[in-house]
Amino acid sequence: MSRYTPLLQQLIDALRILPGVGPKSAQRMAFALLERNRDAGLALADALAQAMTKIGHCQRCRTFCQSTLCAICADPKRELDGIMCVVGSAADQHAIEQIGQFKGRYFVLQGYLSPLDGIGPQDLGLDSLSSLLAEGGTTELILATNPTVEGDATAFYIAELAQKHNVKVSRIAQGIPIGGELEFIDGTTLSHAFSGRKQF
Amino acid sequence: MSRYTPLLQQLIDALRILPGVGPKSAQRMAFALLERNRDAGLALADALAQAMTKIGHCQRCRTFCQSTLCAICADPKRELDGIMCVVGSAADQHAIEQIGQFKGRYFVLQGYLSPLDGIGPQDLGLDSLSSLLAEGGTTELILATNPTVEGDATAFYIAELAQKHNVKVSRIAQGIPIGGELEFIDGTTLSHAFSGRKQF
Repeated sequence: MSRYTPLLQQLIDALRILPGVGPKSAQRMAFALLERNRDAGLALADALAQAMTKIGHCQRCRTFCQSTLCAICADPKRELDGIMCVVGSAADQHAIEQIGQFKGRYFVLQGYLSPLDGIGPQDLGLDSLSSLLAEGGTTELILATNPTVEGDATAFYIAELAQKHNVKVSRIAQGIPIGGELEFIDGTTLSHAFSGRKQF
Repeated sequence: MSRYTPLLQQLIDALRILPGVGPKSAQRMAFALLERNRDAGLALADALAQAMTKIGHCQRCRTFCQSTLCAICADPKRELDGIMCVVGSAADQHAIEQIGQFKGRYFVLQGYLSPLDGIGPQDLGLDSLSSLLAEGGTTELILATNPTVEGDATAFYIAELAQKHNVKVSRIAQGIPIGGELEFIDGTTLSHAFSGRKQF
């Protein structure tokens, strides 16, 4: 038995697709579930299958959502003078929602421009963003992209797009550490970055 | 959206049952699957569901197994003069198999005696072990339990059981660090511990 029984090996291999999980962790996870918590393992299987098949994207802001519009886009109170915040991912959106300071709507890129990886404006839904801006009603676009090369390039691209539609553009202040990942920054730093935003 | 869409929240909560996974890791895992790898997520769901429902225990040695007997118990070559190795878990058995030195069969306790947690001899299948020893054919029992309080107590209990059946008992040498977990020890240390085993 230098190898496990096939289904166990298959489970260990499958667990390794999770970020940060190597062979030893995967083995530990598989044994923990099999030995002590098969019901929770089945619940996880069900949660995974449901999430992978039933979670789609909000038609307006592209965040993860089970219906046509997400809770924020469906809420008229969040129209807030037409201020819209552009973020790179739903995790970034969640981090900003956690500080409870921004009361407008979002546009979730679900990635950044990266020509080498074949990610262009259409993959980030920038055509939808352009239509949204053309509709009118948007007064300011706050760019809250990651302070990385891809995030900067994407911010520049969107700023040009907004200027075409005569929409004011700002970017959250660079109090945020360069090269970092926005979703892992503490709320206070993020809050300061929001307050100190500058004309783009 | 200080909370996620229900299915996403459910997935994040479900991922936290995995050992070593906290709220931030669970969130990172859920987003990684949703954003980049839904097919792998579905494959993981399927692997989990199959493993949780179809993996049982070998009727003879109690290791994880999809059929009545595991590959080792079904292999007549592994009878090896009736030497049997008692281990605490299938992960420990796997660690020993990896060094490729022991060619006999196993008995997998799937736990240790722990009266405070209500784990008694029957929960470890010690009645089956007793029947196996009564059948005859077993000449030596190598105890490869963890060098912890529970592992020691279980080893003493099994040694008494074996002596009742006039079976020689040995324990792997205490070259292994006290208080450690057998499944994480390197193969060389484990190999030395096997060679240096002492009469119990």
